[in-house]
Amino acid sequence: MTVEELIAAVRPVDQEALQRARDRHAGLAKPPGSLGRLEHLGARLAAMSGQCPPPVPSAPVVVVAAADHGVHAEGVSDWPQEVTAAMVATVAAGGAAVNAIARTVGARVVVADVGTLRLGPVPDGVRDERVRSGTRDLAVEPAMTLDECRTAILAGAQVAAELIDGGADLLVTGEVGIGNTTASAALIAAYTGADPADVTGKGANLDHGRTAHKVGVVRTALARHAAAPDHGALGTLASLGGLEHAALAGVMLAGAAARVPVLVDGVVAGAAALAAVALCPEAAGYLVAGHTSAEPGGHTLPDRLGEPALLDLSLRLGEGTGALLAVPLVQAAARVLAEMATLADVTKNA
Amino acid sequence: MTVEELIAAVRPVDQEALQRARDRHAGLAKPPGSLGRLEHLGARLAAMSGQCPPPVPSAPVVVVAAADHGVHAEGVSDWPQEVTAAMVATVAAGGAAVNAIARTVGARVVVADVGTLRLGPVPDGVRDERVRSGTRDLAVEPAMTLDECRTAILAGAQVAAELIDGGADLLVTGEVGIGNTTASAALIAAYTGADPADVTGKGANLDHGRTAHKVGVVRTALARHAAAPDHGALGTLASLGGLEHAALAGVMLAGAAARVPVLVDGVVAGAAALAAVALCPEAAGYLVAGHTSAEPGGHTLPDRLGEPALLDLSLRLGEGTGALLAVPLVQAAARVLAEMATLADVTKNA
Repeated sequence: MTVEELIAAVRPVDQEALQRARDRHAGLAKPPGSLGRLEHLGARLAAMSGQCPPPVPSAPVVVVAAADHGVHAEGVSDWPQEVTAAMVATVAAGGAAVNAIARTVGARVVVADVGTLRLGPVPDGVRDERVRSGTRDLAVEPAMTLDECRTAILAGAQVAAELIDGGADLLVTGEVGIGNTTASAALIAAYTGADPADVTGKGANLDHGRTAHKVGVVRTALARHAAAPDHGALGTLASLGGLEHAALAGVMLAGAAARVPVLVDGVVAGAAALAAVALCPEAAGYLVAGHTSAEPGGHTLPDRLGEPALLDLSLRLGEGTGALLAVPLVQAAARVLAEMATLADVTKNA
Repeated sequence: MTVEELIAAVRPVDQEALQRARDRHAGLAKPPGSLGRLEHLGARLAAMSGQCPPPVPSAPVVVVAAADHGVHAEGVSDWPQEVTAAMVATVAAGGAAVNAIARTVGARVVVADVGTLRLGPVPDGVRDERVRSGTRDLAVEPAMTLDECRTAILAGAQVAAELIDGGADLLVTGEVGIGNTTASAALIAAYTGADPADVTGKGANLDHGRTAHKVGVVRTALARHAAAPDHGALGTLASLGGLEHAALAGVMLAGAAARVPVLVDGVVAGAAALAAVALCPEAAGYLVAGHTSAEPGGHTLPDRLGEPALLDLSLRLGEGTGALLAVPLVQAAARVLAEMATLADVTKNA
């Protein structure tokens, strides 16, 4: 499988199923429109699956992609890079926020190391998908080569395809990576044209003065990238992104290719989603923004999808935590289409 | 049990447990504050239970209280009153939106008829708690006597107390009642001082011109009530409310008395919550606004509680649907406090 084959496998969502879901909603046992955004979400699920009612997701899986970032050398985080591998171990051991929330919503957690600085084998319970030991410093050179970026995309796609083969019917994207809000800000600015100052935040509690420095690092990276040869959407991802961004874009494309909905978390996964949609505009039809990050770039994916994220709880942790909290909303949206009585049924009771 | 005894049984939330939860959150394996509103919610659950970490709710129950409304005679709804009993039967049969969503989040549905116009026995699966056959027309006379109102409050409290004795550890409030957004608007205006035009909406899709008429009905009711003898918070509920509002206020007070969190749905249950808090200000500490109704009065309970509702998905159906969707958020807030590793644990892995 090549990245181009992966992209070509994504088909447009089914507009006819979307319309059938809208028609069905109008006849269910409730005032038309009274389920608000749940009705729109249900119709989108019908469009993704090509079925009305759409299947009710019963096996959600969150894929947590982890990697390190050469841009850490620019002083963009107060946390040492060792924390990335330590958090991967914590996720594998079940002690991270993503695990607690996944247990709440009945989701499986799959953690993949796609490029941390860890030496030696990955811990039990972690998939070893390492492409390289962290990216290069995106402020001074492309973070990845085009080949490394393709390899990371396909690694994520392979993980997702295996999970879907195993029964996963709702994918959730999460990540761990010290420094990855800097790469996310660079990707968001590059894909949307936003000013770095408007999409760069404090990440894992960087203090205010240092955030201004972080904005400067993003500006430097964008200027370097603008002067480089144009390799399109893939070149932007390779130049400015992280290995986990590339892997998550692969997860999203594989989900879309299999007509499986993908719930996207916050600002880092949101940046990966902008890359996925830049590579393959039809993929947008399979993406749902689960939660608006409190990071300033958190709104960019919802803006791109043309609808607000399902949740806005001021989370800014990553790992997939925000999107996982939206899993029951997706299940409910499908279930009301599948299980509710019609107004005609109710009238018989009146 | 009298209403006064019920109110006296509600104790203030535990500020010391609240502080312990905040301290605990600061040491968990995440940047402090990065779980946003989930951290505040978890601390509130600790304060309610008096324990840190708070228990993780595993047996949520939605109580759907149903009743009819004399104000229907004023032409405030396009739906015939028979729909109330028909929807009660639909809920009991498992075909309503509340059932589909309750199945999604693992909640039990308990439906109580506290005063529909139904003649004869209630259907199987419906609790018969009828106080009277609908209220009087609140535009021309008090909807309930003080005694009827007390009886409905205690009926709701009794249902909740039995459920809690049976293991329910998270209560969710729902309702069914053609005409009840009119009574809700009157209650909200009376308890908050809001102008009726600002808190009266289209309910179950009343057309725009008729909504102006509905505002006029609410104004008439408020003028009548203002000229009546002042019987305080209880008198306001009896004069302007529905039997389901009174019953749900009883559910909330009984939950608060048992230190069990109560997730409040939308505008009708929100109006009942304003009554509960007017009767017993300490009860506010046990109430969580689950969803902001798309009805214009939907913000009044969140305003009273001083925090936004957890969800804002433009639902305006009632039945408890919006609050049920927030059940996993409450469970997740408790679970992160109970199950996450600490930063010190992670450092050992680094």
